[in-house]
Amino acid sequence: MSRFINNRLKDFKAYIPGEQPTDLEYIKLNTNESPYPPSPGVIKAINEGEINKLNLYPNPDAKKLIRKIAEFYDVSPNNVVVGNGSDELLAFAFFAFFEKGVCFPDITYGFYPVYAELYNVPYSLIPLRDDLSVGVSDYVGIGKNIVIANPNAPTGTTLEPFDIEEIVKSNPDHLVLVDEAYIDFGGVSAIPLTKKYDNLLVIHTYSKARSMAGARLAYGVANEALISDLKMMKYSFNPYNVNRLTQEAGFAALEEADYYRKNNNEIIKTREYTRECLLELGFEMTSSKANFLFAKFRGINGEDLYLKLKDKGILVRHWDKPRISDYVRISIGTREQMEKLVEAIKEILGGA
Amino acid sequence: MSRFINNRLKDFKAYIPGEQPTDLEYIKLNTNESPYPPSPGVIKAINEGEINKLNLYPNPDAKKLIRKIAEFYDVSPNNVVVGNGSDELLAFAFFAFFEKGVCFPDITYGFYPVYAELYNVPYSLIPLRDDLSVGVSDYVGIGKNIVIANPNAPTGTTLEPFDIEEIVKSNPDHLVLVDEAYIDFGGVSAIPLTKKYDNLLVIHTYSKARSMAGARLAYGVANEALISDLKMMKYSFNPYNVNRLTQEAGFAALEEADYYRKNNNEIIKTREYTRECLLELGFEMTSSKANFLFAKFRGINGEDLYLKLKDKGILVRHWDKPRISDYVRISIGTREQMEKLVEAIKEILGGA
Repeated sequence: MSRFINNRLKDFKAYIPGEQPTDLEYIKLNTNESPYPPSPGVIKAINEGEINKLNLYPNPDAKKLIRKIAEFYDVSPNNVVVGNGSDELLAFAFFAFFEKGVCFPDITYGFYPVYAELYNVPYSLIPLRDDLSVGVSDYVGIGKNIVIANPNAPTGTTLEPFDIEEIVKSNPDHLVLVDEAYIDFGGVSAIPLTKKYDNLLVIHTYSKARSMAGARLAYGVANEALISDLKMMKYSFNPYNVNRLTQEAGFAALEEADYYRKNNNEIIKTREYTRECLLELGFEMTSSKANFLFAKFRGINGEDLYLKLKDKGILVRHWDKPRISDYVRISIGTREQMEKLVEAIKEILGGA
Repeated sequence: MSRFINNRLKDFKAYIPGEQPTDLEYIKLNTNESPYPPSPGVIKAINEGEINKLNLYPNPDAKKLIRKIAEFYDVSPNNVVVGNGSDELLAFAFFAFFEKGVCFPDITYGFYPVYAELYNVPYSLIPLRDDLSVGVSDYVGIGKNIVIANPNAPTGTTLEPFDIEEIVKSNPDHLVLVDEAYIDFGGVSAIPLTKKYDNLLVIHTYSKARSMAGARLAYGVANEALISDLKMMKYSFNPYNVNRLTQEAGFAALEEADYYRKNNNEIIKTREYTRECLLELGFEMTSSKANFLFAKFRGINGEDLYLKLKDKGILVRHWDKPRISDYVRISIGTREQMEKLVEAIKEILGGA
């Protein structure tokens, strides 16, 4: 920390992302990446012709990409904004909309409280139910701005669109931000509701279901007025926030939706296979519709399991936090990777 | 604007970047891009193998790239932070360091006042001298945080390292941020001074002299404590701010420094050629060491010239602002493009 940092930021605690080892010897089941590469069209889109144009700035409005996203979700381009990953769009929203405060679950994406503290946003935590699900009735008519990850992270539990609608409809003068990073693994998106409600903002990412965590791309869908506020934020922070090649890749991916749907179905199947294996071994799990499982085993605590798996070359994620320190979050990789995970867990439990 | 925007941001005015037409029929001399493509190694670095790994997050510490940048400037990796273009790093600095205020020239990069207003930073403007140069003595011992673009934009005038040192040395308890976006077109970088002074932060971009405006990459060099603050900002905003392919491209570009040096020398030659042509036509210009000229002609006002050039398919930049509304800023393209510019100006003046 330098002697020049603002007083307010002394002792500020940043978000800590999952480990990203530079050697690739680990089976990486810790940051919810897709185990599949991007589609053939993405590889074609990032070609020598495009690379040769890197001397030119990207289109700051990302017009071509935004038109494509709008078409894909049957909304207008004025209902879409793009960001350098969903973290950037979340940061814009926390900065722009929540001066009067916001609430979110006590257990959810760990970045929400970081943004709140960074931008001096008062926030309150709504405890998850005992089964670690989001209690819809806790949010109905609460009269506060709300952020909900749906499916929730790291628990994976998922609300249906009518639950979301109830929350949105009953808080008409407050903004409801639904972070749908994991929606394509079995959930149903609330995007269609943005046509009906001007207080709903839905954020999606290409990082999970579209195999592009490395390209950095996300989008927000909402009423035109909310989107114009987010665009104002983008133009006040970094007008060229999405690079040229990522814009091309993002466009190409939407032309090959079948490729990603097939992969995501495969991930769902592998998730259910893994769940069965872990149930057989005596694990307890939340009911996840994301590309990860949130699991605990009575005989071994979460940190131990995390460390022993790491010793065996498998990375999962563990948080040393109240209510969830017994758990590990396991991203769903390929069937082969999950078989190795199950084998490794058997060895660990056998040797415990 | 939505009804959910924070009170403080109502009527906020975002930065307006130069036009980025999506059709490529214009000769684009309006956003200071390099007219040359990235080097062969960059094109090789963004290959199918790398694109296939886009399902994985980038290394958030950008270790390999940062080591390379550190080596290039003979500093330690702990002295370097990377950003999604220099706008992002500038935003982090305005947010983290300037709560007590900052000063910068009245005519400089138009984003500085936008950041100051966005983050509630009090700022004062120090008028440029009558010849539109930065008056060094105005900043010596001023006892305020300082931001200086060197070369300055859009004027192009350039301070020497001993000028920068005098400003830094005489304000030991304030931060001096030197934005060297255009330093490689004839200026001398202040980076070596970061080893001697803990209150100096130098920001560079790949957008101009390294032909990568479309890839979005910049870096800050400073004392380790300042860099750790900026990393804390990055980890509190967007840990994966620089995408995988850009990290690879940025590394590759530094291995081919000769390619860029040759291009930049060519740009300098073309700038001087263009200057001679415009002088002959009766233009007045500041003394620019950037990849642009800042020029006015007694017989035609800046906006007229801008519009008439646009009619002829050439984009330059004009600001309707006090002191500089007579001027246009002309980015330096290829020799051929500049010949066309000179021809177009001759036609306009002839017909005026």
